Amino acid sequence: MNPFKPWQTRIDAFLKDFLDQQQQSAICSRLEAAIRYTLLAGGKRIRPLLAYATADSLNIDRAQVDNLAGAIEMIHAYSLIHDDLPAMDNDDLRRGQATCHIRFDEATAILAGDALQALAFQLLSQTPAEARKVVKLISNLATACGVHGMAGGQSLDLRSENKNIKLEQLQAIHSAKTGALLVACVTMVTSLCDHLNHHQISAYHQFAEHFGMAFQIVDDILDVTGNTEQLGKTAGADENRHKSTYPSLLGLEHAQEKAQYHIQSAKNFLQQTNQKNPTLIQLTEYILIRSH
Amino acid sequence: MNPFKPWQTRIDAFLKDFLDQQQQSAICSRLEAAIRYTLLAGGKRIRPLLAYATADSLNIDRAQVDNLAGAIEMIHAYSLIHDDLPAMDNDDLRRGQATCHIRFDEATAILAGDALQALAFQLLSQTPAEARKVVKLISNLATACGVHGMAGGQSLDLRSENKNIKLEQLQAIHSAKTGALLVACVTMVTSLCDHLNHHQISAYHQFAEHFGMAFQIVDDILDVTGNTEQLGKTAGADENRHKSTYPSLLGLEHAQEKAQYHIQSAKNFLQQTNQKNPTLIQLTEYILIRSH
Repeated sequence: MNPFKPWQTRIDAFLKDFLDQQQQSAICSRLEAAIRYTLLAGGKRIRPLLAYATADSLNIDRAQVDNLAGAIEMIHAYSLIHDDLPAMDNDDLRRGQATCHIRFDEATAILAGDALQALAFQLLSQTPAEARKVVKLISNLATACGVHGMAGGQSLDLRSENKNIKLEQLQAIHSAKTGALLVACVTMVTSLCDHLNHHQISAYHQFAEHFGMAFQIVDDILDVTGNTEQLGKTAGADENRHKSTYPSLLGLEHAQEKAQYHIQSAKNFLQQTNQKNPTLIQLTEYILIRSH
Repeated sequence: MNPFKPWQTRIDAFLKDFLDQQQQSAICSRLEAAIRYTLLAGGKRIRPLLAYATADSLNIDRAQVDNLAGAIEMIHAYSLIHDDLPAMDNDDLRRGQATCHIRFDEATAILAGDALQALAFQLLSQTPAEARKVVKLISNLATACGVHGMAGGQSLDLRSENKNIKLEQLQAIHSAKTGALLVACVTMVTSLCDHLNHHQISAYHQFAEHFGMAFQIVDDILDVTGNTEQLGKTAGADENRHKSTYPSLLGLEHAQEKAQYHIQSAKNFLQQTNQKNPTLIQLTEYILIRSH
């Protein structure tokens, strides 16, 4: 039983509605189809869940958070399309279906990713909030997904293949590649809130960093322990590409301990927010459950 | 003698300053180098010039327009990087130098384009203007470069290669692929202005559409009449790819007449703005001069 099903349904419906609106003025049906194919393929929707759970913790109406949750998921979807390209990770399978460039073609996949990034900022610019807060959201997302965040991290990650890297380097890669966007899920929501003090904002931020670390370590573990059917993507892909991962650097058991450590740290910081966070706690524990 | 040299120097310096600020927190030097290599390679900077000239016409301080001019140029630069990729136009030469994927590698080129798009929105979010206007700028740029604009147009363009298309289809492609961003150069600036009436805003918009059409037709003509050294990119590339162009559909002479028609129409709409537009007129004529 998945306790987050209603929120997954919510974001799925929201994204579908938004794409339906866009389609009325579509100019290239193949590009639209590729975007729809990727964005509506399901997935765990961890990023929107994290945003919704943070909103719950702060008594922010979920309707205020739909746009940012949707925008973050679009950025995530575009990054998967581009990461899967032959020039990058060269993956054929994602979320249990053929990757975008396999189902369509490489040019369409590149453009679908590009268009999704633009759509994310278009959606975010329509957030129902004060303009100064909307500008802050946009600045936060742009920084998280650009050269200092996701794109920079992916570039570092590709350059570390077939190399022996140290644990600190692996952490730096993941902190940029996946951590920055996960942190943005939390900080974008806290920036909508007027009544948080500096200490609380910092506690949410540090919670999100540990959440991101735990999430990535579990993802690395699943690549070793899971099978392709469970994962919906090719199992063992990291090892095939000679990529350093937490299990390869620490061993499986120590990697699992490290995930547990970050989950505990995440929960400790949640306590320091002085807010009631039952769903954030539940979501944090849900990450670890995935690894068993 | 190029009358726009001071503005080209201004935007070059502005972009360099912005990248220098970003570099302090760089995490992947190769990605940064690829961005710098492409964005600082010069070029005509037509889009920033169009934004500055519109600002002049409306007595808007150029310092208010630097961010949007820079953001548009970043979007343009990212589109060139991605369009040149092997899966798209497969070009080796751009602005007189090796294209990004030739100088670096394909993965870096894809990520440099991705990061440039994010940087554009980051820069735009820092525009020194009221927040509600900044949100409008972001919405305008995101729409112009996404599925209904530049990315959609490039997708249509790729799908029209090796096909006989009609003039109306060619116009639809260019209106999205290059027109939408050129129109945004003007409409983003007019949206900073509080004293324009509906009629004037519409006149600027229609000016920009004709400007964009003239620009694209001249670009097509230059691909036939120019040589690789003058162009800084491979001459004859359209014909080699069996792409429909204005000269191929209309013949060279009629294509030139059509460019003249759009330039005259652009000037007529400028008159209807009831503003003094000497630099916009000069810039419009400057397009045509390029084709001789």
